[in-house]
Amino acid sequence: MTPTPLDSYKLLRGAFGKDIKSAANRGLLGDIFRSSLAFLSVLPREPLISAVAGKNYFAFSDGKKFSRAVNADLFVDAVDEWDAFEVAINKKKKSLRGFDDNRLTRLIYSVAISFCCYIDLTHVGDQKTPGTFFEYLIAHLFAWRLDVNPTTRIQVLNLDMETFLTMDFIFDLGKERPKFHLPVKTSTRERVIQVWAHQRVLDGVFGTSRFLGTPVILTETKTDKTHKIVTEICLPDQWRIYQMHIAQLKRIYYLDMPVTYEKLNRVFPPLHVKQFGEFFFEADALSV
Amino acid sequence: MTPTPLDSYKLLRGAFGKDIKSAANRGLLGDIFRSSLAFLSVLPREPLISAVAGKNYFAFSDGKKFSRAVNADLFVDAVDEWDAFEVAINKKKKSLRGFDDNRLTRLIYSVAISFCCYIDLTHVGDQKTPGTFFEYLIAHLFAWRLDVNPTTRIQVLNLDMETFLTMDFIFDLGKERPKFHLPVKTSTRERVIQVWAHQRVLDGVFGTSRFLGTPVILTETKTDKTHKIVTEICLPDQWRIYQMHIAQLKRIYYLDMPVTYEKLNRVFPPLHVKQFGEFFFEADALSV
Repeated sequence: MTPTPLDSYKLLRGAFGKDIKSAANRGLLGDIFRSSLAFLSVLPREPLISAVAGKNYFAFSDGKKFSRAVNADLFVDAVDEWDAFEVAINKKKKSLRGFDDNRLTRLIYSVAISFCCYIDLTHVGDQKTPGTFFEYLIAHLFAWRLDVNPTTRIQVLNLDMETFLTMDFIFDLGKERPKFHLPVKTSTRERVIQVWAHQRVLDGVFGTSRFLGTPVILTETKTDKTHKIVTEICLPDQWRIYQMHIAQLKRIYYLDMPVTYEKLNRVFPPLHVKQFGEFFFEADALSV
Repeated sequence: MTPTPLDSYKLLRGAFGKDIKSAANRGLLGDIFRSSLAFLSVLPREPLISAVAGKNYFAFSDGKKFSRAVNADLFVDAVDEWDAFEVAINKKKKSLRGFDDNRLTRLIYSVAISFCCYIDLTHVGDQKTPGTFFEYLIAHLFAWRLDVNPTTRIQVLNLDMETFLTMDFIFDLGKERPKFHLPVKTSTRERVIQVWAHQRVLDGVFGTSRFLGTPVILTETKTDKTHKIVTEICLPDQWRIYQMHIAQLKRIYYLDMPVTYEKLNRVFPPLHVKQFGEFFFEADALSV
């Protein structure tokens, strides 16, 4: 019998920590994408009303339940995109020939959102499984690109204190090279202040600029279930205040980039909010 | 017909913002306490296994559902305690004659936890109503004690930027006097870093020490539903790191003080974690 997305997810959960950047983990991510697309392919797509300029959204429905909103222009319902990615990623050189940031962003968005929609339709009120899956997906890709596995705790030696801080993911590129602080969230809303606060703690404990803060977020959409209207919840002025007064994040990456945050690249002082696909092409420049 | 706790809660929700420190709001809080106790008085108390040294917990049960854990030594099943409090609080002087910090803490704990238990047993998965009620209760008492109503947004003028920050509650005692930053949470876990981060923003925008950060938290208990074991989730080392590297909180008040956090008063540098009852007697000293 073909494994369900949840079967493969459970295998991934069991194996993930052994070697986060491994091809074995990537194989399971591919299995999950394939079976999620197969599950969704027979379901109707219910159009949603988009209150976001320039974006179109729909939801999958099994007649009773609705999935979360899916960005119609980003969603790639094509397993062969993953196969092409596997071919490109298995080359020794990390240039991902044939892929650009848009194509990569669309593919990774589709892997993430297809499993989320599968869980939305097969489980009631389960936010944890999609969130954990998204962490696996992003941490694996980050680890592949940086060629180092992350940890999730970091030891603090502070005079007479010895303690551990728990962070989403920490990548240590080695002596005299940057370390990456990677929080991963399916959406942030007002909880985003945690990301800046963790960065502040890292800056305070280890020194400013030792850790590059590069959160990766799936989307900020919210769907009004009664009226089927999709909005984006954005707090751009608060973000600017946090960046000025709490800590400096190096990048904020999105799979489904909110229109409002994209504008923060073009004000002074800028906040660098980018499509996640760009990370793959600028990672070396960040790590110099 | 006698109003249910939820009937009175809805009245409070409608009236609360008009005059937060008003005797009218306090009257509705009393109604909610009275009817919650009446609801709970006919229910059996199921003992829980306490993994917390020196504390005993039970849960109310209607035979099918269980309420959250109730600290047996703090819970006062006596409406006349509220009546005595009303008498003391209606005197012009804010000395609360006849009450000390322990007696006040027990009463306020009982008002909070009795409504929470009522909601636990009559609603499925509703965390929002108990949380909002607890905010009303604490904000009202704080406002009565400081004799000023709070706001929940604060304007930031920062050169060419003009924006608003949303905080739980901000009390402005006026020119050349402190302002209080009051976050209110039924429990914090790892989300507590938000409290320090908000304090950091206030310090950064307005200057260090202009705002006294004084969060009020109900409890940090967690109940294992299968084995009926109550534990307290505490992160004392993380708290010390936050206090050193993010911002300085003036006090952290608890209704059900976790054993582990109480010890933070006695290490250097200390973190002042106190029973909420103490606030009523030290408020003037804090505001000098």
